[in-house]
Amino acid sequence: MHPKIITRFVAILIFVLGISMVLPLLVSLIYNDGSTRALLFSTLISSSLGFIFFLLTREKESPQLNHRDGIAIVTLGWIVAGVFGTLPYLFSGWIPDFTNAYFESLSGFTTTGASIVNDIEALPEGLLFWRSQTQWLGGMGIIVLSIAILPFLGVGGMQLYKAEIPSPVVDKLKPRISETAKTLWKVYLLLTVLQIILLFVGGMSFFDSVCHTFCTMPTGGFSTWNGSIAHFNSPYIDGIIIFFMLIAGINFSLHYKLIKGNFQIFGKDPECRIFLLLVAVLTTIVMLNIYGSVYSSLSGAFRYAAFQVSSIITTTGFVTADYDTWPSLSKHILVFCMFLGAMAGSTGGGIKIMRVKLLVRHSYQEIFHLVHPHAVTTVKLGGKPVPAHILNSIWGFFILYLGLFIISTLIMASLGLDFVSALASVAASIGNVGPGLGIVGPVQNYLSVPTAGKWILIFCMLLGRLEIYTVIAMLVPEYWRK
Amino acid sequence: MHPKIITRFVAILIFVLGISMVLPLLVSLIYNDGSTRALLFSTLISSSLGFIFFLLTREKESPQLNHRDGIAIVTLGWIVAGVFGTLPYLFSGWIPDFTNAYFESLSGFTTTGASIVNDIEALPEGLLFWRSQTQWLGGMGIIVLSIAILPFLGVGGMQLYKAEIPSPVVDKLKPRISETAKTLWKVYLLLTVLQIILLFVGGMSFFDSVCHTFCTMPTGGFSTWNGSIAHFNSPYIDGIIIFFMLIAGINFSLHYKLIKGNFQIFGKDPECRIFLLLVAVLTTIVMLNIYGSVYSSLSGAFRYAAFQVSSIITTTGFVTADYDTWPSLSKHILVFCMFLGAMAGSTGGGIKIMRVKLLVRHSYQEIFHLVHPHAVTTVKLGGKPVPAHILNSIWGFFILYLGLFIISTLIMASLGLDFVSALASVAASIGNVGPGLGIVGPVQNYLSVPTAGKWILIFCMLLGRLEIYTVIAMLVPEYWRK
Repeated sequence: MHPKIITRFVAILIFVLGISMVLPLLVSLIYNDGSTRALLFSTLISSSLGFIFFLLTREKESPQLNHRDGIAIVTLGWIVAGVFGTLPYLFSGWIPDFTNAYFESLSGFTTTGASIVNDIEALPEGLLFWRSQTQWLGGMGIIVLSIAILPFLGVGGMQLYKAEIPSPVVDKLKPRISETAKTLWKVYLLLTVLQIILLFVGGMSFFDSVCHTFCTMPTGGFSTWNGSIAHFNSPYIDGIIIFFMLIAGINFSLHYKLIKGNFQIFGKDPECRIFLLLVAVLTTIVMLNIYGSVYSSLSGAFRYAAFQVSSIITTTGFVTADYDTWPSLSKHILVFCMFLGAMAGSTGGGIKIMRVKLLVRHSYQEIFHLVHPHAVTTVKLGGKPVPAHILNSIWGFFILYLGLFIISTLIMASLGLDFVSALASVAASIGNVGPGLGIVGPVQNYLSVPTAGKWILIFCMLLGRLEIYTVIAMLVPEYWRK
Repeated sequence: MHPKIITRFVAILIFVLGISMVLPLLVSLIYNDGSTRALLFSTLISSSLGFIFFLLTREKESPQLNHRDGIAIVTLGWIVAGVFGTLPYLFSGWIPDFTNAYFESLSGFTTTGASIVNDIEALPEGLLFWRSQTQWLGGMGIIVLSIAILPFLGVGGMQLYKAEIPSPVVDKLKPRISETAKTLWKVYLLLTVLQIILLFVGGMSFFDSVCHTFCTMPTGGFSTWNGSIAHFNSPYIDGIIIFFMLIAGINFSLHYKLIKGNFQIFGKDPECRIFLLLVAVLTTIVMLNIYGSVYSSLSGAFRYAAFQVSSIITTTGFVTADYDTWPSLSKHILVFCMFLGAMAGSTGGGIKIMRVKLLVRHSYQEIFHLVHPHAVTTVKLGGKPVPAHILNSIWGFFILYLGLFIISTLIMASLGLDFVSALASVAASIGNVGPGLGIVGPVQNYLSVPTAGKWILIFCMLLGRLEIYTVIAMLVPEYWRK
């Protein structure tokens, strides 16, 4: 471990984060919303602290980073970003309690979208913008994490995505990651600009267009309105957001390949095919389930089913309907989507379709094995055999995910949450979805959760977002042994 | 595949089953309860049909049984036993509907204990006895299945239990299984006699002592009273039943070893240690959770917590309290127990502690792997490394279990069951527990479940009981290919 270089990376992150606060600062100046001073302090403190630690950790030669350094940088990066992200909330006095401010801040950076704000519309524009921006920045982090960093750390089967993006630098980790990051961020930026334009064209204000785009591309789900997307009540806006949520749920290296001219990539990629098929099938089932019982027109049922299925399976968490009042089949499907998530390499959370696909394949192989005990079989993905150590890694991830879910649900229940709210709050937090069911349902928020419960959910959001392994690895004694 | 020999085995089973119906027939004669004629017809039809098919399938040389034959015998054995088990219910007119009768019958043979009988106390004694007897016979089947047959078929990691019971016959499958069966059945019989005596001594009628013992040793859970064990309202009876439920949740080869003089075996066996520790820990948590909120005395809270935790974790399903009204933490713990189950090689259902232990070990290894990417690690059980193919088999089992749970829950929800009832009815059926939550809660029964839902749950009971693989293997095309 190299504590100095780890600190240096985190310091750079905080410096950049502090500088980025200039954007909401400008917004607050334009709207003269009263949060200018809070944002000014926030940007000054963050950027100068970042800069000081950057100077303090200068080294002549930078040593080769090892696995443990990578794990520490990623985990501490998110935790510390969450801390500095609270400054605008705390200084402005709009979220004076640190637990609540950290919940809102980390919910942003982990692109979860769970909120403790009761009256969102009362917040000054500068803070609303910062809130959205934390998600957009979180999304940038996630893309790089899942496509460039985790594959090299060997986390949870992400090794399968090694060398997804061609890079001029092949043999060195650090320059390779930064090359890949630049490529992916260009794609992310392009899609962001496109969505802002399309929302603005549809009649959304420029401010709302930017804020909602900032929360769509990272599959975040914060809105500037108490009613979330239902506020706009526009089929066009619903459609645009559905489209971009699904885009955000697709592996970003496929977008890169699409831009490079491979126009059939979505149809060819085995994980993408399942993802789109699942969205279609689940939307159809939910539509038929809520048609008649909740919505009198089939088109209305389709609109709300398509939106909520897309929103939950991509783990965005935008809301156009109170699905907590839908029939139990629809609710079960949505909870299933919270666990499933979208594609690996997307900004979405959850277990991810690639992993579930391999797990299902594996169990089919085992049935085959029972019938033919002496046959040698391998699990394949896209025609290529998947090595045993990658499958093992996915199995480990899956059990950790379920274990975290079970233990956290028991703790939430012990804090007094009812049966469904306890499990849904945890599923929605680990999956980085945001809204759950019951007291944390789509038209509720997380304010009423007890303080201890908020910290449990913060832990869940962080672990879910960093694919569990990355955080858990730091909690085992082996990590700290020389 | 050898259809003739498969039929022969099933015919023997039905013959024996038919003969065994003489017992409830005698009971009905003693009580003169009006079910004599129905039971007489049932025993005649079953035993003679069994005998006819036995004669029809005579072969000069019996061929060597292969894996597929074993799978077919086990699966068809349970399905067909369920069919003949309905005869007393149908002929007597007490359960005239075939779906309901088959539900009650298979719930017996799979030792689930889910019931569709609204007023149990109204049933004639002969039928009550038969109902208990199906569970006791089911338990005999399960012990042999899990310790003698599944290890050789290589189902879901049960290979670990090969050669648990020493046998004079080493190299041939058929005589070896029958030797092991005889040994284990002696243990089963001994424990049954012991429990009958202890219950009788405690003031239970002889009839009730037999019936409840017949449903304890196989972790079945049928009672002769509407109030289940709560009817007796006796701490002594609760204690005896808790003790024997836990005994039934322990691998029967450990009981065999205990009888052979190895008195420290329970403490030494790693799975048994976890099982007993879990019962203690979960009982304590539930006790503290219901103390004050439900029960005013700590001793009362302990009594009901110990009973329900033991009853659900061993997948028995006896009831002394309406745990559906307990706080959500207790309910979550009980649902967790439905999935977990007791020890492999016991009569209990669920995933089993051995499997969960190995899955948790495996995920810990993967965390270790992340910190030390080049270290070679193995998962161990009791100090011995567990081969990869056994772990794979367990993983496959686990995914099939969860997959069955998810799909069945969605179907139950689509049939109109509420959110909690849908998932609890499926969890309680796959785990062979019996009572669930909501409309199938501890003071309810399964009568109100729609017919389609009953068949789904029947399928779940069967799959859960036969460790899923055994049934699923027959549903894949490979099984039927020459």
